[in-house]
This record gives sequence, structure tokens and C-alpha cells, in this order.
Amino acid sequence: MDLCNFSPSYVRAIAPYQPGKPIAELAREMDLAEEDIVKLASNENPLGASPRALAAMENVLMEVARYPDGNGFLLKTALAEKYGVELNQIVLGNGSNDVLEMAARAFLAPGTSAIYSQYAFAVYPLATQAVGARGIETPARDYGHDLTAMLEAINDDTRVIFIANPNNPTGTLLGAKELEHFLEQVPHTVLVVLDEAYTEYLPKDQSSDSIAWLKKFPNLVITRTFSKAYGLAGLRLGFALAHPQVADLLNRVRQPFNANSMAQAAAVAAMLDDAFLEECIDINDAGMKQVTDGFKRLGLEYIPSCANFVAVKVGNAAAVNHSLLKQGVIVRPVANYGMSEHLRVSIGLKAENTKFLQALEIALGESK
Amino acid sequence: MDLCNFSPSYVRAIAPYQPGKPIAELAREMDLAEEDIVKLASNENPLGASPRALAAMENVLMEVARYPDGNGFLLKTALAEKYGVELNQIVLGNGSNDVLEMAARAFLAPGTSAIYSQYAFAVYPLATQAVGARGIETPARDYGHDLTAMLEAINDDTRVIFIANPNNPTGTLLGAKELEHFLEQVPHTVLVVLDEAYTEYLPKDQSSDSIAWLKKFPNLVITRTFSKAYGLAGLRLGFALAHPQVADLLNRVRQPFNANSMAQAAAVAAMLDDAFLEECIDINDAGMKQVTDGFKRLGLEYIPSCANFVAVKVGNAAAVNHSLLKQGVIVRPVANYGMSEHLRVSIGLKAENTKFLQALEIALGESK
Repeated sequence: MDLCNFSPSYVRAIAPYQPGKPIAELAREMDLAEEDIVKLASNENPLGASPRALAAMENVLMEVARYPDGNGFLLKTALAEKYGVELNQIVLGNGSNDVLEMAARAFLAPGTSAIYSQYAFAVYPLATQAVGARGIETPARDYGHDLTAMLEAINDDTRVIFIANPNNPTGTLLGAKELEHFLEQVPHTVLVVLDEAYTEYLPKDQSSDSIAWLKKFPNLVITRTFSKAYGLAGLRLGFALAHPQVADLLNRVRQPFNANSMAQAAAVAAMLDDAFLEECIDINDAGMKQVTDGFKRLGLEYIPSCANFVAVKVGNAAAVNHSLLKQGVIVRPVANYGMSEHLRVSIGLKAENTKFLQALEIALGESK
Repeated sequence: MDLCNFSPSYVRAIAPYQPGKPIAELAREMDLAEEDIVKLASNENPLGASPRALAAMENVLMEVARYPDGNGFLLKTALAEKYGVELNQIVLGNGSNDVLEMAARAFLAPGTSAIYSQYAFAVYPLATQAVGARGIETPARDYGHDLTAMLEAINDDTRVIFIANPNNPTGTLLGAKELEHFLEQVPHTVLVVLDEAYTEYLPKDQSSDSIAWLKKFPNLVITRTFSKAYGLAGLRLGFALAHPQVADLLNRVRQPFNANSMAQAAAVAAMLDDAFLEECIDINDAGMKQVTDGFKRLGLEYIPSCANFVAVKVGNAAAVNHSLLKQGVIVRPVANYGMSEHLRVSIGLKAENTKFLQALEIALGESK
């Protein structure tokens, strides 16, 4: 069609993001009952959302005909207090995917480049390509970021570096000293987007005090989400913390009502429920041990993970995945990351992990 | 800051969209009780949302930790049935703002241009500028679109034409014959985005069968929203209907989980509640008569409107608006549209309209 040929070539070349298969979709495809399906494919919180978040959602249900507060006053006020930043350092997103794209749209364009690591989150190359910038993928080191290689990759036209810590889909972690040293060496004319979607799962002694770095590095953007440990993936709420001038630019390319009112209300409540968050982390720690013990028992290699998922080497991942699906277990193939022998599995509740491990053993037998 | 100077100049030049003032914000600013405030500023549905939509939201509350269905299967299936289109012709958006931006990102870039009318919806120039394209504003005719002028404005580099029907903030309407004749003359290499956010308010004999045109004009994109007559502004759900190849391109620049799960569930239910929709339209018709009768009584000129709002000429609109705010009435200044003597007021419930008209009479007295 003539018209479509006028769409920029970089748009036409986008291969859309492949999301985890929804439970309802697998139920339709395999003629299974939804309640028999275990989904461990999207790093969701198996405990759901905080009861306080659910109550907050109930409270705003009747106001749903009103536009959301485009300035997000109440949520930003709560975030500012929790994280010790000013309101003008906060940018709200429709999930952190949205703020990652804002960074790309505000700082990238044809003729510029962005750097990200091999095996890093798929949204970085997508967001880079969608604005016509050049993506530079640096080789991974032990499935994680090689910061030296990333520094060396910086060009005159490099405007953004994306770093996921912990990384998805590999679960690898960069230490605070290493990251701080990296930030000291990155030119201040290059934006560093530090994606900390899984940071809540880290033990205190492993997590970086990255927010304190905002004072030292005006080119740092930290992104966080309510989709993982806070259990609000369905509502879509992420945010960025940055220097006020950087936040101002991101807000210029932000859609005025990008953060819906249910998400804003739920996030304020979820953020204050420390007890629920701790419970989620405990369940995740226990589940991680259960799942990795299972891998050891089955003789499978896995990439040690600091998040709520783990990538395991199963050989013919496509065949194993197909067998898992037939058994009603959804995990995530990562062939699109160049990891055709791995599957990424989210940590679920004990019974879900058990069902997954049983199904995996059967799948491994079938795929031999 | 050096870094920000590297942001594209067109991004730095964006003046963000000015949303209607939220009730809570005015309450804080003027020390008013929220329940005493009447908001007629954002063309929201004063009856709220359909009870069936609210029930649907309750039903999915417990699933909020799951990511939304990125393919929107259930909602697209319902839309396809209602509008007689195929699933691959539908693009879901985080509000119709989102699909308008997708059209810009998929078809515009530096070196291209987009055409929109004077007094047309503010998001068209914003979306155009955010991708570095040139905006061409054609003069309005009687506050509405001058389609002849828009045709004449088409250049070799024109990729998109935005048309709002009815238009916001003026409420003007283009007839079906006029629009179809226009579409016949637009080159098929130029995308026509027909924004029908307010179409539900039109009497049958005034509305265009625009969806039938999709078969004839592969360069047509129709956008609709659940934020107006369907009363779901807080949840954010809009959609585009287009040729499958155009829809495919829009989906490539769409964020994978842009439509949240509460919005998807609510929209499916809202769409099927014809009785509620009819009640909303009846209330709007009665309110429009009440408000415009009030204008006549006060000797005020207004732009006859086909939607759920009306622009009225009050003279010193900034002063009148300030007085209204002090009285707890929020309407919309439209000086940013070059209409510094007008205010746009949304049609509310009878008591809200009465309070507005009383406050307006006082405000007009004060501003003399």
C-alpha cells in the first residue's frame, strides 16, 4: 500500500514486543480451564496486590468518569516523601515502559545512538528504533552488563545508555560501587537510564542507593514500577526520578493523562503497605530456593537471579515450552533475546512452583 | 544544562497540554470543600459510568497483579462485532490521545508535515511537534474546519491530516457529504485521522457513517474514545479503526500494555449498555438547552455545538474565569486556542448547570 511506504523505514522495521501469553489465550488455544493454568511468564506478583491498594481502587471507582489528575499531585507527593526528592523530579508513566519511551523520545532522534547490553530488556532496542536512532548493543559478561564495554561504546552521537539492574530476563545484578564508578566516567551529556523495575526484591546489602546519586549525576534517570513487587501490573504505573530539567523534558513528551486514576490511587496505597511488600519478598525468596533446588535436582544450569524470575537452560527451549503449554504452564521463551536454550520462569506461589517443576520434568523427558 | 541542549529542539519547544483543573486542586488553592465545587471543564460525563462498567471493574479488581492482555482480545472482539470491522483493523489506546500520537509517530518525522485546523483539538499540533514534523494550521471557517483550505494546504511532504468531528473546543460539525467529498480528493498517500471523540452525542441524522468509508478509503483512520459519552475518562481507553496495514503500523509504535485491564473490562461492559448511553445523551440534550437558554438570557453569543460542551463569548474570559473559580466553578479557558474572549463549558447535570449560570452572571457583573 503506497501510504504505508511513506511511514519511516525504522517504524516499518519494528518487530513488536512479544508479551507473555495471557491465561485466557492459552485456555482458548489448548481448550483448558483457566483455573488449571499456571502463569509464570510475566514476572507478576503471585500474591496479587496489597489489600490497601484494592481498597483505594474501590474508593475511586465512582470517580471514574473524571479525567485523572494529569499532574499526579497526590501520588507525586507520596513518592517525593518516600524517596526524598522534589515533585519536579518525578515523571509518572503508564507503566515504566512509558517513561523508558519518553526518555527515548526526548533525547533520541535519527542521527543519534543509544547503548544497551546484549540480553538486556527488549524495550530498549524497541524504543530506540521507534524514534529512528541507532542502537548499539554491547556484548554481555556472564549474561549481565559489561560496563567497560558500554563505556567504550560511547560515541559522539550517543545520547542515552539503558541499564537494567537487576536485568530482565537474566536476573543479573551490578554492584553499587561498580555502577557509581561507571556513572563517574560517563560524559554528562549522555543520559543514563537506570531501570530498577525489580529493585524491591534486593536485600538491603545488595541494593544501590541510586536515588542519592541523582544529586551527583544530573544525567541520571532512575525508573521504577508498581508492576512487580507492588502487584499492580494490570493498572500500569511506573515513574522516573531525575534532575528537574531532565524531568521537565520527559514531561513535555508525556501524554497529559497517561497515568490513569485507578493506578494513581492504588499506587499511593500500595506504597505505604510495607508489611505486604515484606510478605511478597519472603514468598519470593522461598520460591526462588524451591525453584532453583528443583533445577539442581533435574541437573539444569540456571543464571543466579536477584529478582522474581530465573532463566534456566533446558536445551531445546521451544520444544520444552510447547510441552509446558500443553500441560497448562506458561513460562517465557527468550529466543528473541538470543537465548534459544533458556526459558525464563517467574517465581510463583509454592503450589505453582511445584506444578511448574513437575511439568518441566515431563517436558524434559518429552523433548529428549 | 548541557545534556538538555542535546534534546531535539522541537522537543525543547513543546509547551505541554494544559488540562482542566482537577477539583482537588481548586479545593486546595481556594480552600473550598470539594463537594461544593462544580467541574465543567473537561467534557466528562456528569452521570458517571454505566453501572455495568462499574460491575465489570469490580470483577477484575482481584486480577490487577496480572498484566493486561496486550492484544486486547475480548475488547477487540466486542468492538469488531459492534462496528462491523475485523480484529486487525483495531488499535487500542491509553485514551484516544494515545492513538492520535501513534498516528503521528508512525507517519510523521522531521521533513514531513501535518495539517490541522485553527481552533482544532490541541493534541494535533502537540503530537506533530513532538516528532519534529511541521504543523500547517489552516484558517477556520465559522470556528469549524475549512475543508477546501485543508485540501489546498496539502504539500508533497504532507503525511497526515487531523480532523475533529465534532470539533473540540468549538463543537462545530462537518456533514457526511462534505467529509466524503473531501476524502475523495485527498491523495491516498496522506493519512486522514478523523477524531470522533464526541460522535455518540450526535443525532442519527447528523452523524456520518464514517466506518463504512474505511472500505473505500484505505488512508482513513477513525478514532473514538470511552472518555466522553461512556464516562470512563479516568481509566483511559480509546481506539482507532483503520485499514489492516495502517493498523499494523500503529500497533508497531504502540506500547505493548498501553490499555490497562480495568479499562478493557469496563469498556466491554460500557459498550453494551445502550440504555445508559441513551440516558446520558438525553441529559446532555436537556442540559445543552438549559445552558444555551441561559446564555441567551444573559445576552451572550455562543458557538452552536453538537457535543457535550459549548464555547461562549464572555469578553474578558480570564477575569470571568477567575471569578468562576473563586465561586467554585471550573470551566475551560481557551486562550491557548486563540479564543481569549471565550470560555468552554461542559454540559453538567441540571443543578450543576444552574450553579454555573448563576456564578456566570455574578462573574460577568464583576468583570465589567
